[in-house]
Amino acid sequence: MSLPTQPTTPSVILTGDRPTGPLHLGHFVGSLRNRVAYQHDYQQFIMLADAQALTDNMDDTGKVHRNVVEVALDYLAVGIDPSKSTILIQSQIPELAELTFYYLNIVTVARLERNPTVKEEIRLRGFERDIPAGFLTYPASQAADITAFKAALVPVGEDQIPMIEQTNEIVRRFNRVADRDILVECKALVPEIGRLPGIDGKAKMSKSLGNTINLGATADEIRAAVKKVYTDPLHLRVQDPGHIEGNVAFTYLDAFDLDQAGLAEMKAHYQRGGLGDSIVKARLEACLQELLAPIRARREELAKDRGYIMQILKEGTLKAREVAARTADEVKAALGLSYF
Amino acid sequence: MSLPTQPTTPSVILTGDRPTGPLHLGHFVGSLRNRVAYQHDYQQFIMLADAQALTDNMDDTGKVHRNVVEVALDYLAVGIDPSKSTILIQSQIPELAELTFYYLNIVTVARLERNPTVKEEIRLRGFERDIPAGFLTYPASQAADITAFKAALVPVGEDQIPMIEQTNEIVRRFNRVADRDILVECKALVPEIGRLPGIDGKAKMSKSLGNTINLGATADEIRAAVKKVYTDPLHLRVQDPGHIEGNVAFTYLDAFDLDQAGLAEMKAHYQRGGLGDSIVKARLEACLQELLAPIRARREELAKDRGYIMQILKEGTLKAREVAARTADEVKAALGLSYF
Repeated sequence: MSLPTQPTTPSVILTGDRPTGPLHLGHFVGSLRNRVAYQHDYQQFIMLADAQALTDNMDDTGKVHRNVVEVALDYLAVGIDPSKSTILIQSQIPELAELTFYYLNIVTVARLERNPTVKEEIRLRGFERDIPAGFLTYPASQAADITAFKAALVPVGEDQIPMIEQTNEIVRRFNRVADRDILVECKALVPEIGRLPGIDGKAKMSKSLGNTINLGATADEIRAAVKKVYTDPLHLRVQDPGHIEGNVAFTYLDAFDLDQAGLAEMKAHYQRGGLGDSIVKARLEACLQELLAPIRARREELAKDRGYIMQILKEGTLKAREVAARTADEVKAALGLSYF
Repeated sequence: MSLPTQPTTPSVILTGDRPTGPLHLGHFVGSLRNRVAYQHDYQQFIMLADAQALTDNMDDTGKVHRNVVEVALDYLAVGIDPSKSTILIQSQIPELAELTFYYLNIVTVARLERNPTVKEEIRLRGFERDIPAGFLTYPASQAADITAFKAALVPVGEDQIPMIEQTNEIVRRFNRVADRDILVECKALVPEIGRLPGIDGKAKMSKSLGNTINLGATADEIRAAVKKVYTDPLHLRVQDPGHIEGNVAFTYLDAFDLDQAGLAEMKAHYQRGGLGDSIVKARLEACLQELLAPIRARREELAKDRGYIMQILKEGTLKAREVAARTADEVKAALGLSYF
C-alpha cells in the first residue's frame, strides 16, 4: 500500500482589469464568474491595472484612481473572496515596473510592432504615428505582471493569445540568458462562453460603446436597458416567426437563465411565431433582476465602509508585492545585479 | 542692517557611468576631474548605471557586475569623496524603473525614434531593425535618472545635448499633466575641455577601440602606451619641423602638463625642428606617471578592502533611494496612483 501523494501546490492564475469604469455583465460572463470558481482550486492574483490604464488615460488620471475602488467593489460584490484571491493594485508594486524595464532589453522594437493585439489596439484608439511609447511596450509590462507571480494560467479572450505568446517568448529568452528556469511559461485559459454582445447587438459589451448593463445597475436601469435590448428586426408582428440567432435577448437568456428547459420551449415558440418580444424581454428582465439584486445589495453594503475595502486592497497588495519582489530579486541576481 | 541671506540649497548634479570597463584618461579629463571639483559646491549624485549597461550587454551580464566595483574604485582613487558625493547603483533603486514606466506614457514612439543620440548609438552598435526595445526607450530611462534626484545640472558632452532636451520635454509634459511643477528642468553642463583623443589619434579614447590608458594602468603599461602615442607622421627626421595639431602627445601634454610655460617652449622647438618625438614622449610619460602613480596607489590600497567599497556603495544607494522614492511618490500621487 502506498501513501497518498502530497498535494501539489495549486497553479497560479494572474488575471485583472484596467480600472477605467464600472464592470458590467460582459465582465461577469467573460471573467468574474470564472474567477469566483477558480479561487477554490487555484492561487489567484487579481490585478487592478491602474498603471497600465494610464497609457491612454493621461488626460483623466482621476478616473483611474476612482475606479480602483469601484472595480474592487464589483469584485467583492460578485463573490471574489479576499481570503482566497489576492487583489492587488499594480502601481503599488514597483517591482512590476522593474521587471518591465529588464524585459525591454530582451524584446526588439520590431517584435513589439508585429504584436497583433498591439496593432489592433493602436488602430482602435486612433494613435497612428503618435503612439505613446508605453503603448508599444505594453506586452513587456504584461509579461512582467504575469511572470512576477509565476502565473501558469492567464484567463484571456481569443484576441489576447498573441500577448501570451509574446510573454512566453520573453520567458524563454530570459531563462536562456539566466541559464536556468527562473521564469515560468504560462497558458492562456480561454473561457468557454466567449464575449457577451452589447444590448445594441454589437459584438462586444463595452463602456465606450455605451451598450452595457453594469453590475451595480439599479432595478430601473436594468428595466430601461432590457427595453433597449436588440432582438430580431424582422420580427414585426407577434404572429410572425422570429429569429434566435443574433437576438441579444436570447443570447443573454442563454447566459443567465437558470431554467434552460423553459427557455428552450420559449425559443421554439418564438421561432414558430406567436410570441411577442415583450414576453421574451419580461423573462430576461426577471432573470437579470434576480441575478443583479443580491450583487447590488452587497455592493451598496460594502460601499458604506471604504476603509474596509482599502484594507483588503492594502493587504492583498502587500502579499502580492512580497511575491513580486522575490521574483524581481531572482531576475536581478540572474542578470548579475545583486550586490549587498 | 539686514541679516545675511540664508544660504540656498546647492544645486543638484546627476552624473555617472555605464560600468562596462575600467575608466581611463578620457574619463578623467572629460568628467572625473570635474566631479572632484563639483562635489564641494553641488549636491552630486554619481550613478553606476548597471541596469542601463545591460541594454547592450545581455550576453555578458557578469561584465557589468564586475565593473560596478572597478568603476567605484576608480571614483574613489581619483578623489571622489563619498562624504561629499553620493555614489549609487542604478539597479538597486526600483523607483528609477517606475519613473521610466510612467514617462513612457508621455513620450511617443515617433519622438524617441527622432532622438539623434539614439539614432547614432543604434548605428554605432549595428542594431538596425533588431533594436532592443530598451534601447529605443533609453531616453525615458535617462529622464527618470535625472528627474528622480531633481538634478538641475547634468554634465554631458555636446553629443548628449539632445538627451537633455528630451528629458526637459518629459519634465514639461509631466508638469502639465500634474498641473504643478513636480519635476525640475535641467541644464547640460558641457565641459570646457572636450573629448580626449585615443593614443592612436582617433577622435575618442574608448575601451572598444583599444586606444586607452586606464586609470589603474601600471608604470609599464603607461610606458608602453606612450610609446604608441600618435604624433606627427610627417615628422620623419629630428631636424624637420614638426606639427602640433592632431599630435596626440601634445594634446595630452596640454591636458596634463603642470608646467605650461615649459610646454610652450617645447612646442616652439618642435615646430621649428630639431626636437625628436622621443623627447616629447619622455616628457609626456613623466607627466602621466606622476599623475597616475598616486591614483594607482590609492586604487590598489582600496581594492584590498572590498567590504569598505561595498559599504560606501550601499550607503550611497540607500541615501539616493530615499530621494528617488520621494520623487516617485510625488509623481504617482500626481497621477492619482496614491491610495494608502
